[in-house]
Amino acid sequence: MKARIKITLKNGVLDPQGKAIEHALSSLGFSGVNEVRQGKYIEVDLADGDAANARETVEKMCKDLLANTVIENYDIEIAS
Amino acid sequence: MKARIKITLKNGVLDPQGKAIEHALSSLGFSGVNEVRQGKYIEVDLADGDAANARETVEKMCKDLLANTVIENYDIEIAS
Repeated sequence: MKARIKITLKNGVLDPQGKAIEHALSSLGFSGVNEVRQGKYIEVDLADGDAANARETVEKMCKDLLANTVIENYDIEIAS
Repeated sequence: MKARIKITLKNGVLDPQGKAIEHALSSLGFSGVNEVRQGKYIEVDLADGDAANARETVEKMCKDLLANTVIENYDIEIAS
């Protein structure tokens, strides 16, 4: 069972990495870019075959280790 | 128009960040984790309102700047 986790900075939290990409894109001639935000993407391959269990485990992983819930949001997607 | 880009390492490319997460998870008592891979997640907010145009632009951004296509894959999702 595979879990795909997207971790993004909460709205209002400064994102210097995103700003750097924004500037690089405009230097390369890409116009019409309003905003860029960068986050993390993590794929976890779990031995557990039960989707509900897997989601619960991954939720705990996010809270305990993967995301800083003060400034970050996480989004979990479970795929077989 | 919003583009969501997932950039992941190609299969077979060593992923030390993923390995570090794997070890940290097992230290925290999470068992049954087969593999962890870490990638990047980028959200680009575009002024362009046309989905096909937006996809083309973002595809070019990935090739030119965001992804290293020798070792990375990218996946683009366009949302309104």
